[in-house]
Amino acid sequence: MASLVDRDLLFPAEPAVRAIARALYESVAGLPIISPHGHTDPRWYALDEAFPDPAQLLIVPDHYVFRMLFSQGVRLEDLGVPTADGSEVEIDGRKIWRLFARNYHLFRATPTRLWMDYVFSELFGLDQRPDERNADRLYDQISERLGEPSFRPRALFERFNIEAIATTEGALDDLKYHRMIRDSGWKGKVVTAYRPDAVVDPDFPGFAANLDQLGEMTGEDTGTWSGYLAAHRARRDYFRSFGATSSDHGHPDACTANLSATEAAALFAKVLSGGADTAERRLFRGQMLTEMAKMSLDDGLVLQIHPGSWRNHSDGVMQRFGRDKGFDIPTRTDYVAALKRLLDAVGLERDLTVVLFTLDESAYSRELAPLAGVYPALRLGPAWWFYDSPEGMRRFRELTTETAGFYNTVGFNDDTRAFPSIPARHDLARRVDCAFLARLVSEHRLGEDEAFEVAKELAYTLAKKAYRL
Amino acid sequence: MASLVDRDLLFPAEPAVRAIARALYESVAGLPIISPHGHTDPRWYALDEAFPDPAQLLIVPDHYVFRMLFSQGVRLEDLGVPTADGSEVEIDGRKIWRLFARNYHLFRATPTRLWMDYVFSELFGLDQRPDERNADRLYDQISERLGEPSFRPRALFERFNIEAIATTEGALDDLKYHRMIRDSGWKGKVVTAYRPDAVVDPDFPGFAANLDQLGEMTGEDTGTWSGYLAAHRARRDYFRSFGATSSDHGHPDACTANLSATEAAALFAKVLSGGADTAERRLFRGQMLTEMAKMSLDDGLVLQIHPGSWRNHSDGVMQRFGRDKGFDIPTRTDYVAALKRLLDAVGLERDLTVVLFTLDESAYSRELAPLAGVYPALRLGPAWWFYDSPEGMRRFRELTTETAGFYNTVGFNDDTRAFPSIPARHDLARRVDCAFLARLVSEHRLGEDEAFEVAKELAYTLAKKAYRL
Amino acid sequence: MASLVDRDLLFPAEPAVRAIARALYESVAGLPIISPHGHTDPRWYALDEAFPDPAQLLIVPDHYVFRMLFSQGVRLEDLGVPTADGSEVEIDGRKIWRLFARNYHLFRATPTRLWMDYVFSELFGLDQRPDERNADRLYDQISERLGEPSFRPRALFERFNIEAIATTEGALDDLKYHRMIRDSGWKGKVVTAYRPDAVVDPDFPGFAANLDQLGEMTGEDTGTWSGYLAAHRARRDYFRSFGATSSDHGHPDACTANLSATEAAALFAKVLSGGADTAERRLFRGQMLTEMAKMSLDDGLVLQIHPGSWRNHSDGVMQRFGRDKGFDIPTRTDYVAALKRLLDAVGLERDLTVVLFTLDESAYSRELAPLAGVYPALRLGPAWWFYDSPEGMRRFRELTTETAGFYNTVGFNDDTRAFPSIPARHDLARRVDCAFLARLVSEHRLGEDEAFEVAKELAYTLAKKAYRL
Repeated sequence: MASLVDRDLLFPAEPAVRAIARALYESVAGLPIISPHGHTDPRWYALDEAFPDPAQLLIVPDHYVFRMLFSQGVRLEDLGVPTADGSEVEIDGRKIWRLFARNYHLFRATPTRLWMDYVFSELFGLDQRPDERNADRLYDQISERLGEPSFRPRALFERFNIEAIATTEGALDDLKYHRMIRDSGWKGKVVTAYRPDAVVDPDFPGFAANLDQLGEMTGEDTGTWSGYLAAHRARRDYFRSFGATSSDHGHPDACTANLSATEAAALFAKVLSGGADTAERRLFRGQMLTEMAKMSLDDGLVLQIHPGSWRNHSDGVMQRFGRDKGFDIPTRTDYVAALKRLLDAVGLERDLTVVLFTLDESAYSRELAPLAGVYPALRLGPAWWFYDSPEGMRRFRELTTETAGFYNTVGFNDDTRAFPSIPARHDLARRVDCAFLARLVSEHRLGEDEAFEVAKELAYTLAKKAYRL
Repeated sequence: MASLVDRDLLFPAEPAVRAIARALYESVAGLPIISPHGHTDPRWYALDEAFPDPAQLLIVPDHYVFRMLFSQGVRLEDLGVPTADGSEVEIDGRKIWRLFARNYHLFRATPTRLWMDYVFSELFGLDQRPDERNADRLYDQISERLGEPSFRPRALFERFNIEAIATTEGALDDLKYHRMIRDSGWKGKVVTAYRPDAVVDPDFPGFAANLDQLGEMTGEDTGTWSGYLAAHRARRDYFRSFGATSSDHGHPDACTANLSATEAAALFAKVLSGGADTAERRLFRGQMLTEMAKMSLDDGLVLQIHPGSWRNHSDGVMQRFGRDKGFDIPTRTDYVAALKRLLDAVGLERDLTVVLFTLDESAYSRELAPLAGVYPALRLGPAWWFYDSPEGMRRFRELTTETAGFYNTVGFNDDTRAFPSIPARHDLARRVDCAFLARLVSEHRLGEDEAFEVAKELAYTLAKKAYRL
Repeated sequence: MASLVDRDLLFPAEPAVRAIARALYESVAGLPIISPHGHTDPRWYALDEAFPDPAQLLIVPDHYVFRMLFSQGVRLEDLGVPTADGSEVEIDGRKIWRLFARNYHLFRATPTRLWMDYVFSELFGLDQRPDERNADRLYDQISERLGEPSFRPRALFERFNIEAIATTEGALDDLKYHRMIRDSGWKGKVVTAYRPDAVVDPDFPGFAANLDQLGEMTGEDTGTWSGYLAAHRARRDYFRSFGATSSDHGHPDACTANLSATEAAALFAKVLSGGADTAERRLFRGQMLTEMAKMSLDDGLVLQIHPGSWRNHSDGVMQRFGRDKGFDIPTRTDYVAALKRLLDAVGLERDLTVVLFTLDESAYSRELAPLAGVYPALRLGPAWWFYDSPEGMRRFRELTTETAGFYNTVGFNDDTRAFPSIPARHDLARRVDCAFLARLVSEHRLGEDEAFEVAKELAYTLAKKAYRL
């Protein structure tokens, strides 16, 4: 049976370059997976239950999948995407799968297609890509596998050769699944990450109530600036006790601030009162990035900034289906002015690590590589989201390496909630990096011996080091 | 005689990839031309007269040609470009041609050079590229051809294998040439497209008078908001009766609005009064895009948006030579905020097609592909204008496909008034797409069978389907 | 002994393309160097003294080198970078060199690495790249060479085959080293360039005092607008008497203005009074670009604009180490609106040359190529600073050539103060251009005969012609 994944997938066609790429890839293909940033559900590892049917596992929760189908006229209801008001949607996994299979050609030349092919072929042993005719047969084949014990989360975790994985939890999460994992005695390394958007962003739904809850959880008075900061410190410590080595911040832009304690307290009071205007709410988010960075100086958490997404762009979809339905659209993002306050405060610290991501590729060579190529605290996160793709990752290397080098980057993040696709994503990233290195070697810009060293750094070591895992 | 166009033009040099590209290209090279958006003159097809001398056909009206020559110090007067005040310019076609031939090296590595080589070689049978020495000989050769019946517009239309072509006419055009074509019994499919800039854009020269004329033509009271909208509907119907399947809108930016009927009427009144400020005039243009989209829901016209050009950038050239003299310069263009109102109004409609173009490549992967990859109403127009070039089209595919796929794009537009270059432009686009597909196949990112399907979609089917031709 | 620089460095791997690249390169590799814009110290050529130790020559003054090391946690003090207050830093060249050698892997895939390898190998005859083990041996080898007469500046100048080089001096410089060079009878062509930022930019430290000094040097009353302009004219003449063929302007953005004489005089008075606000100081800088362009119409100096760098981004580094410490970060830069005033004033002049540079690549295809491809006065400077790199130069050609052609570009600028690296930089640029041309030839987009012509233009002729050297 031919695999859907060619052994030379993503390697340049020129035979000499391909041979180098292949050799580099073979040297890293078997390395364990470090997944320092992602969104898998800790519940899976805690309960270790069988995954539900193929559609519920692979289609319904994957916004990459349903957004493309939707863009071509498929209704979200027919794909089983739950509505906000609970009104009826398709629940028959087989019907959803058929709809997906019939439209699989829409994914041609997208990363989703490559990840899916990999999962179908390498994980479920399928020998054909889904289409209208084979839909039922493939559905049955996947369903059958999902019933087997070797397809439970922990077994897969081990089969995937995951050395460490980070999930992401909100500041108010009680981390009970992380506690269950720890108490279970299972040896898989699953850590959390501190994502405080809901208690940092005044525009987050329920912000005021969230702050009250934060106060209750920590015993701090979150009605005062000092109490609020203390509550963050307490939650960070709690998250660290469950292995967290990083915090993560998803802001509309990269604005940072560095107010005096008095100014910050006054701003906090105004935000709490509900009277802060747009600029002040933005300033508050910016101030909190700097506060988080300062806390990182004490507790060692790596600070991740994921800016520049206009969330839930369609009012209609937001009303009917709620958040996270594929309508998060990147926007033009400034870094040079926006990060200045944070960088003046902590950018020269050699023990701090701030990982910057972007959805605005025009900033790679113009702003991000020049900043990361000089500030000791800065590192560049890998190509993110829409750019976590063969062309996107190639551009990332081409646009950042000459100014920031390899060593100011942090390896790969899969950033996914699609657990079965994790090996596919890491495999693709390794292939793309090896293809890039092979070109450098073939053009005599890098020694072959050096390329082998760098390949391992990019596939494994840099992520482990940067995220302190 | 060697052709100026190599059979492997634009195919990657690596032999295995080239072989795939060649095979793909051979499968689509003979497909009919669908030209859904362009600026050829319907008069040509109506009257079917011989084209004038080589310079008047190939140089004087082509802003790609004279802008490059002008940039290197050639005077527009010497190229026969007419002045606004009618003061004298060169009218001797041979002299103009000699000037062009002497400077043909300036076009090296530009698309103009490739189109011209194709036209010279494939259409006129020239065996050399123009230069100072052969200028007169080539001029005579082209002149002779232009006198032959087989070089008349309709004969060329048929020889070019054009299945359908759209011209573009202003809202106030009486479409008399389209009527002549229809009445002539000739079977060539030439349709119009509705371009209402002159009666939509308050900054358009003669806007008020244009509205009066619109009222007269339709019998509607264009002094009222409802009459104005009715007049548009009437003109759209009239254009549809001459085959129009699309409207087209060239705005300085992509701003859209969705005012209430009352607000819109008030804004229209203010615009009419001449008292609207810059922001209000911009808002009005934006409102009209949404109005047009809503009319499209009723009458099925495809809405095309061509934003982001700073027209007639040089005051000096505008004064001496008037509009469209090569001084239209792209500007940075936002889409995510700008299109939100229109998308909230009609973006989820599955029966509407809005085709977006851009002159700001930084928006391809950041904004346009993410938007088109989720909103059912949106499609991406092909690489436009300065980007209708080998590198430009390659970047378009590399930057949009991974997020929007192939099926949210609409094939190729030649967008030209240079009739003889139409086969060249389509040929180049087909070659570039086949080269792109060949790389995907050679890197095992797409099956060879799939690539043949996609090649046909990109060369023919997608344009036909998207533009309902 | 194997060279650290492969003969096929930077040439595409595909054998047929590589063969073309090699042939093109061989035809230009031996051409003399035209270096029309750079920052070498005229003192070197004037005094012709031996260069100091390897670290003081190659590491301490090179911000490309120390910024990368700093970004990875090396202290600037340990690299011998002088502090603003004169507090102690490392002065032992050997220790600095060891630190550099131990971290040489950080430069993998950066242009610095390629330049350094070239200098080590081709100039100093080293047979290994620096590392921890060979550091001392290599240091001794370089030191020894530096003591030899054939490694003095003038001998190197001749060995480097430099036909002409421009240094850059501030408007207040007395050009005494240029005078010494001229008086020495040495035949090396070293010219100056007029860089008046310190007397044009109201934000420049000591602006008022600088204007006084300008008045003293010229005998003009720089307290009046007309006197101030006359002083510029006098200094330009003085610089021209030392061979200057260009002026150079480093502004935060590309803003230009074209005020009436009365308005300009009023603005100048306000700037002098210290009462001009941010917008007015920006406007003044913009006005001065146009004034300089108008003076260029009279005296023939080529006007260079280097906009878009946020200088000295880190307050902390600025305070401790002063200017030019690797913290100049590119920013997003507009050209279409910004240059309009200057272009309306002088853009159509065929005897004026304005060379535009950018640190914002997104402007290459969107703004700069369309502008340079039509305005006779405009030319595009080569890929600058962070983009003076293999990928950066390739992108420059791919993004500008199709719209602006080759002949609206001006060849290569090394823009360096690192004298030993000049041949390396020109060699790399020639290689990248030949690789680009080879791809065009192999894809039949350019004839091979034409490619040889263009290769010479890019390597030599265009720079000489554009800069009138």
